[in-house]
Amino acid sequence: MNAVPRTLLEQAAELSAAVTRPIEGSRKIHVQGSRADLRVPMREIALTDTPSVYGAERNAPFTVYDTSGPYTDPDYRVDLAAGLPRLRATWLEERGDSEPLAEFSSPFTRRHAAARELEAVRFPNLPTPRRARAGANVTQMHYARRGIVTPEMEFIAIRENRKLEALRDSPLLRQHRGQAFGASIPEAVTPEFVRDEVARGRAIIPCNINHPESEPMIIGRHFLTKINANIGNSAVTSSIAEEVEKMVWAIRWGADTVMDLSTGRHIHETREWILRNAPVPIGTVPIYQALEKVGGVAEDLTWELFRDTLIEQAEQGVDYFTIHAGVRLPFIPLTARRVTGIVSRGGSIMAKWCLAHHRESFLYERFEEICEIMKAYDVAFSLGDGLRPGSIADANDEAQFAELDTLGELTRIAWKHDVQVMIEGPGHVPMQLIKENMDRQLEKCHEAPFYTLGPLTTDIAPGYDHITSAIGAAMIGWFGTAMLCYVTPKEHLGLPDKQDVRDGIIAYRIAAHAADLAKGHPGAQARDNALSKARFEFRWQDQFNLGLDPEKAREFHDETLPKDAHKSAHFCSMCGPKFCSMKITQDVRDYARAHGVGEAEALAEGMEEKAREFREAGGDVYRPA
Amino acid sequence: MNAVPRTLLEQAAELSAAVTRPIEGSRKIHVQGSRADLRVPMREIALTDTPSVYGAERNAPFTVYDTSGPYTDPDYRVDLAAGLPRLRATWLEERGDSEPLAEFSSPFTRRHAAARELEAVRFPNLPTPRRARAGANVTQMHYARRGIVTPEMEFIAIRENRKLEALRDSPLLRQHRGQAFGASIPEAVTPEFVRDEVARGRAIIPCNINHPESEPMIIGRHFLTKINANIGNSAVTSSIAEEVEKMVWAIRWGADTVMDLSTGRHIHETREWILRNAPVPIGTVPIYQALEKVGGVAEDLTWELFRDTLIEQAEQGVDYFTIHAGVRLPFIPLTARRVTGIVSRGGSIMAKWCLAHHRESFLYERFEEICEIMKAYDVAFSLGDGLRPGSIADANDEAQFAELDTLGELTRIAWKHDVQVMIEGPGHVPMQLIKENMDRQLEKCHEAPFYTLGPLTTDIAPGYDHITSAIGAAMIGWFGTAMLCYVTPKEHLGLPDKQDVRDGIIAYRIAAHAADLAKGHPGAQARDNALSKARFEFRWQDQFNLGLDPEKAREFHDETLPKDAHKSAHFCSMCGPKFCSMKITQDVRDYARAHGVGEAEALAEGMEEKAREFREAGGDVYRPA
Repeated sequence: MNAVPRTLLEQAAELSAAVTRPIEGSRKIHVQGSRADLRVPMREIALTDTPSVYGAERNAPFTVYDTSGPYTDPDYRVDLAAGLPRLRATWLEERGDSEPLAEFSSPFTRRHAAARELEAVRFPNLPTPRRARAGANVTQMHYARRGIVTPEMEFIAIRENRKLEALRDSPLLRQHRGQAFGASIPEAVTPEFVRDEVARGRAIIPCNINHPESEPMIIGRHFLTKINANIGNSAVTSSIAEEVEKMVWAIRWGADTVMDLSTGRHIHETREWILRNAPVPIGTVPIYQALEKVGGVAEDLTWELFRDTLIEQAEQGVDYFTIHAGVRLPFIPLTARRVTGIVSRGGSIMAKWCLAHHRESFLYERFEEICEIMKAYDVAFSLGDGLRPGSIADANDEAQFAELDTLGELTRIAWKHDVQVMIEGPGHVPMQLIKENMDRQLEKCHEAPFYTLGPLTTDIAPGYDHITSAIGAAMIGWFGTAMLCYVTPKEHLGLPDKQDVRDGIIAYRIAAHAADLAKGHPGAQARDNALSKARFEFRWQDQFNLGLDPEKAREFHDETLPKDAHKSAHFCSMCGPKFCSMKITQDVRDYARAHGVGEAEALAEGMEEKAREFREAGGDVYRPA
Repeated sequence: MNAVPRTLLEQAAELSAAVTRPIEGSRKIHVQGSRADLRVPMREIALTDTPSVYGAERNAPFTVYDTSGPYTDPDYRVDLAAGLPRLRATWLEERGDSEPLAEFSSPFTRRHAAARELEAVRFPNLPTPRRARAGANVTQMHYARRGIVTPEMEFIAIRENRKLEALRDSPLLRQHRGQAFGASIPEAVTPEFVRDEVARGRAIIPCNINHPESEPMIIGRHFLTKINANIGNSAVTSSIAEEVEKMVWAIRWGADTVMDLSTGRHIHETREWILRNAPVPIGTVPIYQALEKVGGVAEDLTWELFRDTLIEQAEQGVDYFTIHAGVRLPFIPLTARRVTGIVSRGGSIMAKWCLAHHRESFLYERFEEICEIMKAYDVAFSLGDGLRPGSIADANDEAQFAELDTLGELTRIAWKHDVQVMIEGPGHVPMQLIKENMDRQLEKCHEAPFYTLGPLTTDIAPGYDHITSAIGAAMIGWFGTAMLCYVTPKEHLGLPDKQDVRDGIIAYRIAAHAADLAKGHPGAQARDNALSKARFEFRWQDQFNLGLDPEKAREFHDETLPKDAHKSAHFCSMCGPKFCSMKITQDVRDYARAHGVGEAEALAEGMEEKAREFREAGGDVYRPA
């Protein structure tokens, strides 16, 4: 490590205990794959036994998908200045189709790596960048189409299955039939299924060869619905240390990917710190940084400068780029009569450029050249919806759908290069217009994964847009959206702090899970079943721990019934100790069981003495079993 | 007023400033009806002018539906011990079909009115109760069916129209076509339409003749979607003063009705305080109090005791009763194999009674007698879903639907007596099963209004069930549910405090409004349009004030950009001052307008010199208009 001023490094190198402490009631486990270095992390929630009054059952630990990375592993020593272990490094080397570079390809990166004034903020252990060998294509789609099952694909198959096989024959696996709107979700995910979906372009694995720290994950409508959290400083606020902390915080609560949308100072350096410490894919919007490089003057953007920015970021390890190549010159006037015009930052930068030059967008014209860069590092496209509606009024309009058609056209081009693609979607959409978005996207974009921002189902609740949008997100997720970009309560009002990030993520984990349930994703209901069983049996700690946010549940419970004794009490604060519907239900169940009245008719025909017996027995749930 | 100990009275008589201060940026207005004493309260939001750079437009004040009662009127002096003005007293007297009683009919009430030890908690100015004259029926349904348009109906017609006629020809009225699933919503609500809907049983006006303080409102799927908030102490916590404060707090944020679910001490007295000060209909679950009267022993309940409780509460002025008459003996064993059994308190009380006596429910057997009571005071039925699912696993099962069929049968009986009915619904339902609930309810219950609790779309987020359920509530509201019963973040964990009540209500106002938008309710989108226009034009104060929670929006904004100057700034914290997509959109708009390029083709054909012109002009939004 260089001898550098330590202030910012030290600041960044220390995560708060809040973001790294183990999740209560859980432990990190790893499921072994076919090779020694393929170990898939999951989170196992310990459960207590069912009390004897409810049947004295053993409840096996429950395994859940885990996005939190090594940070929640008490055996892992966090060292932000060293970065995370390079999980995929060997896999990348073994493939032999990429090579380390002697120096960074981007002149911008080289200048930043050498600048003395950046020492205080620069990540101290810059890795050697890799690039595809001449003529090679290192995308997962390229491998998939050649029939190769990569370790990343096997990792994902194990991860998506989240040890469901351990529940075989368990009543926890019972669930309602889903409605998947044409999606065909397999009972169990095999590596071959992952390969096939990636080959067809129906799913993407965002995993830049320069981000070997990331734990492979997949985005596609035949897999679990994913969510993205945005972080990023702006000219107005936030620091590097805060952004790294926010990233670790976001994955703790369940962000599957994180987008770094920084627009302020030290964009390059912030991104490096985030990438080196991110176990999840990182996405960016490269045009934001390109704009910084020309002092915020959109008209001064050039293809050459943008190209260098792509290479700069690709060699840092960004896993997917939002590229607004669908904002074409002829579509821009279609937005003139909108209530809120163009609300996408990337979209409006490009609109301004197109108008100023009266030329077609260079992103559109140079799209094949962009593909060449993407495939040299395996960066996936997130084709940006620069003309997405920013209000209910503007939903599903001509501008939005003209751009969507173009995104479909660009998808074909990217696929010609075996470059992975997902498609960004709105935005603000009233409920009755949501399905049209999904249906058109599937049709026009050839089933490439959809990645939507919400959508918000009304404009009238600033301060609560995590809720207005969780409604739309749950619905569009059900209809087939593969990843939901979160919205925080601060949307439209300010930059989210840690509490807002947590609130946004939980709202979106709810939406994603509700979508998986509705689609009938295999085993999706098991966690609901386990939690509801714990609730019925007054296993309070299990109820908290099985929830999306055990800390919050525990805190809320303790506000009303703070005493520890109450957490094992067979009643809750809603009804108080004297009367409890759960208790009465147990009486019903005991009664039905004891008297063999499983059938409605049996009871209806009735025997008076049974009623007397019940009454005399006292019907108390606390009586010995 | 009696000379009574003042402690509790004084405590209750003082609402905190937080619940009574006027809503910032708004004023209370009244729309005059056909008679002097028919003045419909609404809330008018003042708007600022559009800045000249966006076109220097005058923005007329925007009127919204107002549930907050006189409390938010700075001209009204709150006196809880006197109660609210008796708005409907004259109307009731004029009808001549009811009469004041010499004393309360219920022996229980008489005992409580006389008990010295209750003086400290008793409402000091008990009104004289009224009852229908012998043989008379005082329900709004009865009047409606005889072709009578009551002042209540006219009040409601004016209220539902919320001064939309003032927006005629305004672009704010432009909106997307809705999908109403067979509902036929009129362009404007007339008193005659209200009468017709009530006559058909498709809508109810909960307005007990002993609750003349309430401002008439309607619940039906051809009207605006309503929400209910629950309050109520329990054996564990809360006091009378807190509950009154909570009621005023709930209507401030938008509760259309409030249910008092108290189960603890002083149920009767708490209810009196609430009713005398409630401008919204109050609902209760009488079996809760009946159970208290028998010391919590369900088996000891009797028809006589329950009947007296109905009369007791009807003479206090409760507007609707939840009655679990559909929990029939033969259905109870159908719940034995559920994951969470019977979760409705009322349902489980009746289940316990039925099992203990091995008899059919007295609520079911005495249903016609209950109808006789209801029509003597105009109490509406809220037929309880005692067998609603308490977990995703139990959704849409045989027990639930068997009960629903019975509720349909009971609806017919109530209608035979011209008694108003709504039907309660679940609960916990995954998204793909929600529509079946609505469709079956419409069919089996003959289009009586549906009133659902959420539903929660997943069980895995204790601490966030306002969100899991707002998703389901928005959807079922869209499908046709007339009133949505809120769920707070504390659901399953504890009793809601004021912050939880506010969070629950806003989540449900969002759900209800999203539903109205999706149904295509006339003018529903106007508020979204007005708010989004304000947002686009950087009218920050207008954006806050048009939102559901101006205080929260302002607070969030100020966290990032606290300076007052920033509230008039033409940028926001998300992008900072240098770059702003709204600003660029305005450039696009100016450009399109200036150059007459409203059509995509015109621009695409392009004239290079226009691009130069734009560039030379600087494209700055701040340039003089």
